[in-house]
Order: sequence, then C-alpha cells, then structure tokens
Amino acid sequence: MEKYQLTLNNIWKYVKEVFGDVEVAYLPPHGNNIRSTYGREYERTLRLADSLRQLGIGPGDKVATMDWNTIWHFELYWAVPGMGAVLHPLNVRLAPEDLVYIVNHAQDKALIYHRDFAPLVEKLKPHLKSVKVYIQISDGQGAATRDPEIEDVIRQGEPKPFPEISEDSVATIGYTSGTTGRPKGAYFTHRALTLHTLVSAVAFAGYRGFARPECAEHLCTFLQLVPMFHVHGWGTPWTFALLGWRQVYPGRFDPNHVVKLIAEEKVKSLAGVPTMLYMLLTAPDLHKYIEKIREIRPIFTVGGAALPKELARKASEAGFIPRVGYGMTETAPILTLGFFRHTEEMPRDLDEYYSLLTATGLPIPLVDLMVVDENLNPVPRDGKSIGEIVVRAPWVTPEYLGDLEKTKEAWRGGWFHTGDVAVWLPDGRVRIVDRAKDVIKSGGEWISSLQLEDLISTHPAVAQVAVIGVPHEKWGERPVAVVVLKPGATATEQDIIKHLEKFVEAGKIPKWWLPDKIIFTNQLPLTGTGKIDKKILKEQYKDVLR
Amino acid sequence: MEKYQLTLNNIWKYVKEVFGDVEVAYLPPHGNNIRSTYGREYERTLRLADSLRQLGIGPGDKVATMDWNTIWHFELYWAVPGMGAVLHPLNVRLAPEDLVYIVNHAQDKALIYHRDFAPLVEKLKPHLKSVKVYIQISDGQGAATRDPEIEDVIRQGEPKPFPEISEDSVATIGYTSGTTGRPKGAYFTHRALTLHTLVSAVAFAGYRGFARPECAEHLCTFLQLVPMFHVHGWGTPWTFALLGWRQVYPGRFDPNHVVKLIAEEKVKSLAGVPTMLYMLLTAPDLHKYIEKIREIRPIFTVGGAALPKELARKASEAGFIPRVGYGMTETAPILTLGFFRHTEEMPRDLDEYYSLLTATGLPIPLVDLMVVDENLNPVPRDGKSIGEIVVRAPWVTPEYLGDLEKTKEAWRGGWFHTGDVAVWLPDGRVRIVDRAKDVIKSGGEWISSLQLEDLISTHPAVAQVAVIGVPHEKWGERPVAVVVLKPGATATEQDIIKHLEKFVEAGKIPKWWLPDKIIFTNQLPLTGTGKIDKKILKEQYKDVLR
Repeated sequence: MEKYQLTLNNIWKYVKEVFGDVEVAYLPPHGNNIRSTYGREYERTLRLADSLRQLGIGPGDKVATMDWNTIWHFELYWAVPGMGAVLHPLNVRLAPEDLVYIVNHAQDKALIYHRDFAPLVEKLKPHLKSVKVYIQISDGQGAATRDPEIEDVIRQGEPKPFPEISEDSVATIGYTSGTTGRPKGAYFTHRALTLHTLVSAVAFAGYRGFARPECAEHLCTFLQLVPMFHVHGWGTPWTFALLGWRQVYPGRFDPNHVVKLIAEEKVKSLAGVPTMLYMLLTAPDLHKYIEKIREIRPIFTVGGAALPKELARKASEAGFIPRVGYGMTETAPILTLGFFRHTEEMPRDLDEYYSLLTATGLPIPLVDLMVVDENLNPVPRDGKSIGEIVVRAPWVTPEYLGDLEKTKEAWRGGWFHTGDVAVWLPDGRVRIVDRAKDVIKSGGEWISSLQLEDLISTHPAVAQVAVIGVPHEKWGERPVAVVVLKPGATATEQDIIKHLEKFVEAGKIPKWWLPDKIIFTNQLPLTGTGKIDKKILKEQYKDVLR
Repeated sequence: MEKYQLTLNNIWKYVKEVFGDVEVAYLPPHGNNIRSTYGREYERTLRLADSLRQLGIGPGDKVATMDWNTIWHFELYWAVPGMGAVLHPLNVRLAPEDLVYIVNHAQDKALIYHRDFAPLVEKLKPHLKSVKVYIQISDGQGAATRDPEIEDVIRQGEPKPFPEISEDSVATIGYTSGTTGRPKGAYFTHRALTLHTLVSAVAFAGYRGFARPECAEHLCTFLQLVPMFHVHGWGTPWTFALLGWRQVYPGRFDPNHVVKLIAEEKVKSLAGVPTMLYMLLTAPDLHKYIEKIREIRPIFTVGGAALPKELARKASEAGFIPRVGYGMTETAPILTLGFFRHTEEMPRDLDEYYSLLTATGLPIPLVDLMVVDENLNPVPRDGKSIGEIVVRAPWVTPEYLGDLEKTKEAWRGGWFHTGDVAVWLPDGRVRIVDRAKDVIKSGGEWISSLQLEDLISTHPAVAQVAVIGVPHEKWGERPVAVVVLKPGATATEQDIIKHLEKFVEAGKIPKWWLPDKIIFTNQLPLTGTGKIDKKILKEQYKDVLR
C-alpha cells in the first residue's frame, strides 16, 4: 500500500466530512457579510483550484496574495497548497521596494490582491517580472482594475477533487520582515504544516489555560485577528478548522469593529501582537461591549513580541484571559504556548502571577528547545544565566531560499538559532530577555531592553515605551527610553527615573541599568508586522548621548 | 538540517520535560502498589534500555512480553521502541501452540514475562527457538524462575540517552487473534504510532463527548483497562501521557478491584471490550462504590465489539458515560470514535439516543473511511445499503508479515479491507452490521447476527447472547441464538421468540430473521481478547438444525 501522505488536503477533507455544517463567517467593517460553512467552503476551494489550473498555475508555481483576513484568503490557504501550488502571502505593510524584491526573488507566478491594494499593485506591476496572472478581490465593492475578479474565477471552476500530492512538496513560503538586511525566504512543506496543525490542536484543546470547559460541550468561536499575511496567521485558520470550531474573519483590522464582533459573535479565542491587544483595550467603543466581553472571557494569545505585565493586567480587567505564544517566521510559527501544568499552583501574589503569565510558556509537543551558550551547551536552568534559544521541530524551515550562507549560520550544529536571548527557568519555561540585536551592551555587560520596558510600562502615565541602546563614548552603548504618554497624562524624565529607582531598591534591576535619558514622543514607529521598529528609533536617536 | 523524525522517543522526552511531575500509579489487586511519575519513569526506561542492550538486544530485535497492565509493561512500551528494538506484546489468553507459532514466526529474541505466566513459559521454552534472553517480572512476590528479574535489570542500566532513530523503523508488532486461520502479524513504525498518538489526543481532548469540562481545569486520571497485550492497549498509554493526564495501571483484571479503583482514584476515563464493561456492572462490590462513581461520571469507551443498547443503558444508570470506538489489530487500532458534532442535537427519544450512542462513530482525523460494494464503489449513505468498511490512515499496517497472498487480498485497490460489514448513515457515521465471517447468509440474503443479538439482549431475563449461522439444508444457513440468562431469571424459547416478534411487528426486522432455535447455556466461550468466540459456538452447534 502506498504510504499515507501528511497533507493539508487530508485535513481539509476531514473538516468537510465531519464539520461540514459549522459556520465560517466573513464579517468585515464595511459590512459585506458572508456566512458560509466548511462544507460550502470546501466546494469553493475545489472550484478555485480548478480555475487556477485553467489559468496556467501548475504544481510548484508560487501564488502570492495581498489581502486582509477575508474569506477569500481563507479559501486560498486551502486551495493553493491543495492543488500542489505554493501559497505566498505578502506582508502588505512592507515598503514597495521590499515587495518587488520579494516577489521577484520568490518568482511568484500569480498575484491575488484585495482591491484596497489595487493602486499599489498597479504601481508594482511593471517591476514584477515573473507574475503572469493577476486576480482581484473586489469584496462586494466593485472592480478596481481590469484584472479578473475572484468570484468569477471561482464560478468558472469545476469542483474536481484535489490531486494526490507528496507530503514533502512545498505548501507555503514566507519572508522574514527584514529588520536586519534583505528579507529572507522560508518554506514549509505539507508535512510540516500538517504536524503544526495537529500539535497546535492538541495544545489549544488539551492543555490547561487554553482548554476551555464550556468548549467541551458547546460550539465555540475563534476570531482570526492575526494578519494572514504574517506566518500563516499563526496557523489558526487550519488548527481551529481541525478542532471543528466556528471561525470569524474580520477583514481589515479595525479595533472598534473587532470589540463589537467579540461581543456579538461570542468569540472565545483570538490572538495577536501586543499592539493589537493594546488597540482593542483603548478602542473608543470598548465601553459599549465590555460587560458582554467580561461574560464571554475570550482568551487573547499574544505573540510576536513580549506581553508587558501592565498590558496583561489591563486585558484581565477588560475581561480577556491573556495568554502568550512564541515563535517566528522560520518556525511556522508556534514553538511555545503559555499553558500551565495541572500540578502547578497559580501564584497568589499578583506580581508573581503576572510573571508566570507573561513568561514565554512551555514548548508544544515535538518542539525540542534549549537555551545555549555560544558552544551550543545548555545554560543552567537557574533563571539567571543568559543564552540563545535554539530549536528543532518538524515545522522549522530547513533553509533560507537561495541563501546558503545565512542558512549555515542559522542552523549551525543542527539547531535553528532563533536570535532570541533568554534565561531558562527551573520549571522549563523560558523568559526572553531580548532579541540578540536589541540587547544593550554597556561596558561589556548586557542590559535587557525588554525588562526595562516592562518596568517603565507600569508607570501610570505611560502608554507605550521602547528602550534602545544608544552609542556612548565610554560605555559603548547606554539605554535610552522613548515614551508615549497616555492621553491627558503628564510625567517628567525625573518621574520615570524615580519610578525605576524603586525597582533598583527592591533589587529587581541593577542601578547601572537606569536609562541615561527619557525621550517623550507622540507615536512609536511600527514594522510591517506591527512591532515597534527599533531600527528606526536607533537611527533617529543615535546622537542623543553625544 | 536533518529531517525531524516522528518517533515515540520524542513524545516520551516531551512528556518527561513538561509533565514530569504527574503521577503514574501501579495499583494491582494483590497490593504491590507503586506510585511513580513520568519523570521517574523516563529515567527507568533509559536504564532498562541500556540493560537490554548489554544483554545483547540491538536495533530491530524483537522483544516479546507476556504481562498484565503493570508498570513494567508501561515501561517496556517506551523503552523497547525507544532503543530501536521492536516491542511484541503476546496475547496471554492464546493457546500455547498459537504462542509458540507466533514467537517463532516473529523470531522474538527476548521474552519478558510476568511471574503469573512462569509455569506456561517453562513449558514453552523448549519450543521457542529464537529467544535468547528471558526476564521475569516478579511483581513484589518473589522470583518464580531462575531468569533475571526486571528490577535487577533496570538497576544495572545507566540512564544513557535513547539513540536517534528513523521514523520508519518498526516500533511494534502484533498478531491478529486468529479466529480465522493462523495468526497474522502486523507491524507499526514510530511514525505510525506517533501520528496515532497525536490524532487520538486531538479527539480525546477536543471532540464533543470525549472532552470533559472539568479536565480543562484540573488534573484528570485515566485507568488503563484494555489489556496491553491487545493492540497497544488501544494506544492510550501513549495518548494520555501526551495529554499530561495521571495514569493508573490496575494489573490483572479484577472487576471488584477496578470499580474500587475508579471510585478511590477518581478515574475520569477508561476503555475496554463490552464484556469488561459488563463485568464491572455486575461486580459484586459495585454497590459499595456506585454513589462515588455516579459523582465522577467516568467515560467508558467500548471497542473490540459492538456496544449493545441495553449495556449502554445499564452503564449510564451506574454512572458511566458510555462511548464507542472502532478499530482492529491491523489499524493500531483507532479508526473511529463515537464523538458528536456541536451542530447536532442529542435525540430526546431514548431509543434514538442509544442508537446514536452505539453507532460506530465518526472517523478520527487522517482516517479515510468508506463503505463499499465489491467493486470498491461507495454504497449510498442511506443507512440501508450494506457494504464493507475499507480504510486508509497513516497507522494502518502496510502488510501481513511474510504473507504476500493475504496482504494482497486485504489491501486490494489500495484500501485496507476491514472485513466488517456495515451500513453508512447520512450523517457520516457507520453502523457495523456484522463481521463478514459472522453475517448469516440465508437463502442468498444477509441476516445481521449483531442486530438480532442487540434485540434479544433487551429481554429482561437475558444476560448475554450470541447469534450464529447454522448450516441448513434448504436455506444454506439459518440463525440460532445462544443465550445466557441472568442469575435467578427464567425464560423459554417461546418467550424470546415472542419478544422478537414485537420488533417484527414494529418493522424493525423482517419475519424471516427470527431464529430457528434458542439454546440456553451457562457460559459463552471467549476468545483471547475477551470477545465471544463464535467459531467455537458454530462448531459446537453445527448439527442442531439437522
């Protein structure tokens, strides 16, 4: 008998067979609501795949997307890998020149774009040499260009079965956001994504802190908030389909709209970067829905950056259950989730509780994770010794596309080097101290920018903060904090320093970690993935200590 | 980077890292209680593997076991595949000549046996040509032979890491119970069992009817009742370890002892053949624990044979939540589980409810299942058309060891033929009508022995029943029922026939299905796996219609 292949197709067929009646809803801010089901979606993905074949897309061809979290993006997640082609979601927040570089580097053959990006795509077209097929998603708002519209494309296809494909065929590619150097391409096979889906499902359904009592007995709803152009939207479109959950796709991110959807659609689980959580918690309409949200108690899984304690606290107050996850583009992405052991007691002390809550969590099954020194020896699990996180897992990309040198560097010794600097706690959790590139080197010692940000964010007047290393004649680098105050709040440089000195007295940080300068500003620059862009800040403030 | 290998070792290492503190308890009837943890067990399995290596067991060597559900059997489940050797649990209920045949056919190099089987093993030894190493498990009761004792063996090993092994290496072999012809060998790779573990975990933790609200928030306990010599004990020693549940190993099956353990250890889930459930429900000590069991509401998953409605009803009354599973030796074993969709309402009519409950359930993820006619075309999903169940799944054994002819027959057309005859319901569930070999062919038409048994078992005086096809001059075969009455109850042949005639009037079965004869007896013969042995009954009663 032929070996059974681990493919997304087999997951998708299963979802259709067993959970075909469950709703998948597209409920965007502009009101083009579409209420579908997994069963109906399955048929549409078959038609879509057939049509793409007729348009000349074959096995191994790359299909790029520029789209919000729409139902068409959901369909492309299944249809493109399903037909043996390669899904390549483009980060729509990137600069045009980066997009051109990435599309040409990946040799994308098709580009399927939401009408919101039509003007951008028209500008890019002359530079995209490999793209032969353009399809627009008009999203109920009329055509924006002359390119074929996706609903017409779907209509023209026949619901022919997906072909049998090898589990080792590539299903998706994605590029790192490129805050250091040129964007690098990672790829993921059907096998990798099938295993990521199965293991995520075990953790989301079976592990304490993610498993929900009421979802054992009733249909629960997941809202796809993580942009689907960002590492498979963290894989949840596939994972929650396998779990038979109802799914809501909210379109373009609009905080007021999302808090409304959470309340009205009874959303039990969602995920996003800290900035998105922050924006929900400061959404002007939140007060209208906060009572309802407190009843629902949605789990909000934060990833992509550290969850500051203060944000966790605020989220809890607003009725959310804050959780963390950790991963990156190269790892499909999930490596750890902040679940708890049944054998551990939750700390009664609130500060300790939030410490546990905001640590990076525990690896999910099949993830081998170590914190190591530069000789790849594990550091002691003492919560103090600092090292780099290295991992092995079935869903880590095996290489950077066409970049042998960076591949060798990242996978040295047979382990993928995450570039995250962390301490290893005795309980097996890791606490990320910094990105290798963000850690501040002062007089030969390391200062954690993350930890300082965490403490500064507990000041009542502070809305957001970024701590960066700024060149210093004597020490090499010294910490500088860039702070955004809450609307109407006031604070001086001295107030912030005094606030930090309390933590020095309590022994939480050494005195020499105190920032040399506090800079107040109105807004922090963000990367394409919604993280604070420290590269820009470092450039902007590189001379403030001279 | 080398491809990540799907091995039981990676599951086991994960369990140790994350759930190392969780208890694994051995609590046998004779009181040799051992309370261990996954962490401690991990170290013991490393030592055991190292010692076995020193005794000459190498990669690919087969290690047979003859053991109850002991903690040593649990250790062998991890240690033997972990070192790259092949675990071969022997069904201790088989006839000695079958055991000799199987050990010689498999070329087992070691035999590790519980002291209860020492007399049998001494008799077998002269005939077991390939076995070089014998180890006894004295289970706190003193040595029974001169063979090394397993605790000494473990003590002599060092806790060296398991080797890196390929996911395609064979982890276990097992033989079918052989009610038709010679026992046939099936084998399972690390990949197959890892995927079986992951997918079972998704279903047991995430799917309605198996997911338990309280287990989302508290540590729950699984009791390993399915004999571990029978298809990996249905895989649950691995599955519930991955889920981080506490596990209880009850030793030799003793119904009084098991009902006590369920109550005292707060067992939330267990599984077994219908006969085992029946024996728990009729255990003399049940009344002492029934109040407690009604509080706990343990899930009892029945497999290996159909769950009669009457038994499901009795189990519910005693506080159990009856569930079903379906699979066989060749399929590792799980193919379907009786979970429910959140979108389906439970029937209010009790009879319909038990119909739903006792149907074979829905496939678990990655199981492709069809009911087909003899040309491998799916039969209509109408609940009437009868066909054979055929499957594909990553954990179906790819062949019968050394039997090309039977392999070709069972895997014809690329699908494994289960030999189970079933109807396909519109909701995707299957209802097994009979084993291909048990179905009664009367005048060219099929009579379902299972369905008749189900109806006869609803008669208040009936404890157990088997319906068999008996040779008949005119019709080829006619049904005959063999009945065991409840203690103190009385019933005549006419009473049973009258009882069945009500179902004929209600249109549930045709009149010509009525058995030609009802035979009363005190006990039904069982196979090694605890199922009613119809082969013996057919032989015994082959002349009753002449």
